[in-house]
Amino acid sequence: MPHISLPEGLPGITSAFAFRPDTARPMRQLAEVLLRGPNTLGSGEREMIAAFVSARNDCQFCHNSHRAAAAHHLDGNYDLVDAVARDHHTAPVSAKLKALLTVAGKVQQSGRDVTAADVERARAAGATDLEIHDTVLIAAAFSMYNRYVDGLATVTPDDSKVYDQMGQRMAKEGYVRPDTGVATS
Amino acid sequence: MPHISLPEGLPGITSAFAFRPDTARPMRQLAEVLLRGPNTLGSGEREMIAAFVSARNDCQFCHNSHRAAAAHHLDGNYDLVDAVARDHHTAPVSAKLKALLTVAGKVQQSGRDVTAADVERARAAGATDLEIHDTVLIAAAFSMYNRYVDGLATVTPDDSKVYDQMGQRMAKEGYVRPDTGVATS
Repeated sequence: MPHISLPEGLPGITSAFAFRPDTARPMRQLAEVLLRGPNTLGSGEREMIAAFVSARNDCQFCHNSHRAAAAHHLDGNYDLVDAVARDHHTAPVSAKLKALLTVAGKVQQSGRDVTAADVERARAAGATDLEIHDTVLIAAAFSMYNRYVDGLATVTPDDSKVYDQMGQRMAKEGYVRPDTGVATS
Repeated sequence: MPHISLPEGLPGITSAFAFRPDTARPMRQLAEVLLRGPNTLGSGEREMIAAFVSARNDCQFCHNSHRAAAAHHLDGNYDLVDAVARDHHTAPVSAKLKALLTVAGKVQQSGRDVTAADVERARAAGATDLEIHDTVLIAAAFSMYNRYVDGLATVTPDDSKVYDQMGQRMAKEGYVRPDTGVATS
C-alpha cells in the first residue's frame, strides 16, 4: 500500500505523477529528452542503461517497465536487455556501450566513483562527450525515479503482460502525455 | 578537471547545464517547483532537506550551495542549517521537520528503506501527504543532482564567499533562468 493517498488504479510512478502534476511535468520532459530525444545513442541503448540502473537499485517497477521499453526499441529482444542487466561485460553489445554501462554502474553507487580512466575507456571505444554526459545523467535520473517510486511505496504490478504493454507505449508514444498539459512529442 | 569538455568559468552544475540546455530546462524547473514553489513547507526547510541529502552524498558543490540558499531563506542562520546536517535529531527544528528529515535520509540510501512507521511518525507530527511527497521527491531529486555534479567531475569552488553569493541568488532569483529559454518565475 502506498505511504500516502495516491490516485488508485494507476501503477508505479504514474500514480505519483497524477498526485503532483507540477513536478510530473519536468520529470516527464527530462525522461523524454534523455530516452527519446535526438541522440547518437539509440533509444534501445538508452532504455537499457535505464533498466540496468533500475535493476541495480532493485526498483521492480522501473526495471520491468524500462526493460520492456528497451525490448520494444530492439525488435522485442528481451534476451539482450536481460543479458545486459545480468552482466554487461559479457553481454553481446558494443565495446562502447559496455564502457558506458560501467560508467552508469559507478554513478548508480556515487558520482564520485567515476574515474578519469572509466571515461577514457568509453572515449577510446568511440563515445562522444554528449554520450558520456547523457549516460551519467540517465544513471543519475534513474537514481531519482527509482527512489521516488519506492520511497512512496507505489503499486508494483506483478503481471509481465502489463509491463510489456507499458513498455510498448513508452517506446512508441513516449513520456510527455497530453494529460500533463504539455504537448506530445 | 571535468571528465568531459564543459564550458569554462562556470561552477558545478551550471557548467553541465550550459553544456546541455535541453536537459537543464526540466532539471531547473523541477528544482524551482520543489524548493521555491507554493508549499506549506518553507523554502528554508526545503533547502535544508536538499543540503542534508547532499551532505550525506558527500557532494560538496550541492551541499555548500544549498546550505547557503537555506541560510539566506532563514535570515542568515547558517548555524541552524549546519546543526541539521550534523544531527537532525538534536537540531532545534520542529518535530515535523525532524521526522521528514528521517524520511529524506532513508530515501538518500534507497526508496525501499522508507517504512510505514517512518511516514506515520511524520504524519503524527503534523505532516501532510503533500509534504511527505515533496520530502521524498526532494531527497530523490538530490540523489540525481549530486550524482550529476560529481559523475561529471564538475568544478567545485573552495571559497565560501562564492557559495554565499550563489545561495543568495538561488534564494532570491530561483532556479529558472532566462538563459535557459524559460521565463524567470
